[in-house]
Amino acid sequence: MSHHDDTAAFRARFDALAAIGRDPATGGCNRLAWTAADAQAGAWFAEQAAALGLHVERDANGNRWAWWLPDGVSGPDAVPERSAVATGSHLDTVRDGGAFDGALGVVTAFGALASLQAEGARPRRPVAVVAWADEEGARYGTPCLGSKLAAGMLDPVEVAERTDADGVALADAIADAGLDPDRLGPDPDRLARLAAYLELHVEQGRGLVFADAPVGVGTGVWPHGRWRLTAHGETNHAGTTRMADRRDPMHVLAELIAAAREEAVARDALATVGRVRVHPNGPNAVPGRVTAWLDARGADADTVRSTVEAVGDRAEAAAQHTATSVEVTAEAWSQGVAFDAELHRTLARATAAVTGRKAPELATAAGHDAAILAPQVPAGMLYVRNPTGVSHSPAEHAEVADCVTGQRALAAALGELAT
Amino acid sequence: MSHHDDTAAFRARFDALAAIGRDPATGGCNRLAWTAADAQAGAWFAEQAAALGLHVERDANGNRWAWWLPDGVSGPDAVPERSAVATGSHLDTVRDGGAFDGALGVVTAFGALASLQAEGARPRRPVAVVAWADEEGARYGTPCLGSKLAAGMLDPVEVAERTDADGVALADAIADAGLDPDRLGPDPDRLARLAAYLELHVEQGRGLVFADAPVGVGTGVWPHGRWRLTAHGETNHAGTTRMADRRDPMHVLAELIAAAREEAVARDALATVGRVRVHPNGPNAVPGRVTAWLDARGADADTVRSTVEAVGDRAEAAAQHTATSVEVTAEAWSQGVAFDAELHRTLARATAAVTGRKAPELATAAGHDAAILAPQVPAGMLYVRNPTGVSHSPAEHAEVADCVTGQRALAAALGELAT
Repeated sequence: MSHHDDTAAFRARFDALAAIGRDPATGGCNRLAWTAADAQAGAWFAEQAAALGLHVERDANGNRWAWWLPDGVSGPDAVPERSAVATGSHLDTVRDGGAFDGALGVVTAFGALASLQAEGARPRRPVAVVAWADEEGARYGTPCLGSKLAAGMLDPVEVAERTDADGVALADAIADAGLDPDRLGPDPDRLARLAAYLELHVEQGRGLVFADAPVGVGTGVWPHGRWRLTAHGETNHAGTTRMADRRDPMHVLAELIAAAREEAVARDALATVGRVRVHPNGPNAVPGRVTAWLDARGADADTVRSTVEAVGDRAEAAAQHTATSVEVTAEAWSQGVAFDAELHRTLARATAAVTGRKAPELATAAGHDAAILAPQVPAGMLYVRNPTGVSHSPAEHAEVADCVTGQRALAAALGELAT
Repeated sequence: MSHHDDTAAFRARFDALAAIGRDPATGGCNRLAWTAADAQAGAWFAEQAAALGLHVERDANGNRWAWWLPDGVSGPDAVPERSAVATGSHLDTVRDGGAFDGALGVVTAFGALASLQAEGARPRRPVAVVAWADEEGARYGTPCLGSKLAAGMLDPVEVAERTDADGVALADAIADAGLDPDRLGPDPDRLARLAAYLELHVEQGRGLVFADAPVGVGTGVWPHGRWRLTAHGETNHAGTTRMADRRDPMHVLAELIAAAREEAVARDALATVGRVRVHPNGPNAVPGRVTAWLDARGADADTVRSTVEAVGDRAEAAAQHTATSVEVTAEAWSQGVAFDAELHRTLARATAAVTGRKAPELATAAGHDAAILAPQVPAGMLYVRNPTGVSHSPAEHAEVADCVTGQRALAAALGELAT
């Protein structure tokens, strides 16, 4: 170990970023994409890079890069295919978000490079810190916008026309942020330079609390989908319709809620009924229609589908039992991603070396830029313990000691891969 | 029996009234209180009365009366205390309502008097047809406004200040309808003249369908109440929060819905969860709070309370099981009413005489003017079969033959009581 005090340096970097866009009333961070606060975060990024002697650039999709280049590579454009190791996350937040989500991955990326530099390491491959643009999608509704545009997963013309809640088109917001909206779009050459992408993120759940570990390694992102169930019955007077004579779709909802939990638990999956709409929703009316949304996620697509099928079968049985009917409509489906096996081993080894114990493995059902890139670039993730599991809220929190442990694991992995 | 054709006369009266305020597009009746259509219905009332030689008056609360007076009673103001038999219902409807609700009671009241007159009967007591004002409360939110004002159950000053959806104050609507809003209020002298009040109403359920009978006799109005249950949990990400780690108040709702049905069925009561509010109601969020309203009605107050207690206990158990909490707040309670026993016997006898079979007894959980008057005036009700049970809808229906059977039972009861 060097004499470099990585805890103090972590605090300084983290606090400077957390102060940008912070609402003193709530303590929440407000760095929505393409705003002045987002630009301020970009200035912070440039300062951090300059302090480490890194070469900063911003790509056509607004993603920020800070390059630590080996001897013989003259600049970012000279980085050979499949040679670079990138690490980072994002700087934007949701409205009144937490200080850790996204920020932690960029802060620890700089911190890890600073530690490597303090140890006297030199890169044998190009190393980049990256901050992906508009990861939260809080203004324009598409999470991971910067990475998805780069990966060719979005139509840039369609994207540019979107408007935020104030009617501002994305094209205008992006132009105000100093970019050319006509240059949005796929960036295959840039992604092709990457041999690996590592992302450290605060956990958005309590898996590491239960594992009693400060840092874990991501195995992938679970497939997940959303289904809409509409139960049809008959609106009736609550005071005059006999119980036996009702066709009350609320009973389908009751079974749906119970079934979602039981079938998910039975498969180690996740199922949530989070949104409900009742018609006419009057306190003295037997409802005529109840619509509910089922969010289901699991380790693999079969697990998710079998969970949803079992839940749907039970809702159907409840409908038959109550003389109502139920329709199930698939609204969204996203295929899961398994992170790169070799990178996973590297991250697990690095984490074990830093923590002195086997790193817990965590699958996540939340989306991350690493999952967007994974089909094109070998990717891996580290998670830092979140004591309450709370995210997207001013109450989001991680202990500094855990963050620094995560940063050390990231530094160890980068050291093994690139120095 | 006379040669008077009561079926043809019923059709003529009923059809003329049903045409007033009818929307040709939906077939629904629109005779909201204090509107031009309501006034037109008043003109119909006056015509019917005139054809039978009845003396018409409108009281200070807008209730319309048509008097058939015995020899020696010079006018309505000369009716002695506790001497008169009144029968009727109301002429106003909900928006896009049915043609039977309310109207049937007034049409059959006139029809019954016409039949008695055709038989050559003479009243030995004053007999009145009454149409209570604003029974539906569709404009100003208070059902049975005319009878409640007369009975002293509403503050007339507070009532007059209420506004409808267009911002029109009740005082102005009442003045436009030709009444003096300053004269709204208790009318104890008028109610004191009544020895009995009979109301025939289309059933708003299918009790008579199951009893296979055209007409039934009301036993009273069930007590009923409304309770609000709020379950508190913790909002969480649907993708990252383990099932075991959730505090999901939706499970309290599921148990509430199931318990409401089961506990009501076990007690021959009615319980309905008709209104639900979920927070934040996002498809990918474990809800933090779920509020649901429980409407419960039963044959007596103990039945209702024990139903609600059992449901509340089960909701509480579900809350404990899911690490959530639940609060139960009573929002409304109305004590039940038992109709007058002697009038009940008279109506049952009359119905049995007309139908040739024992009259089914029906409790109702819907409100009626008869229930408002019952604490002050001996009251009773007849119900006419409703094949679908639908009410407050253009689809509300009763067969003419059943309506005429009801009218004959009403005439028989009036004949026994007053001629």
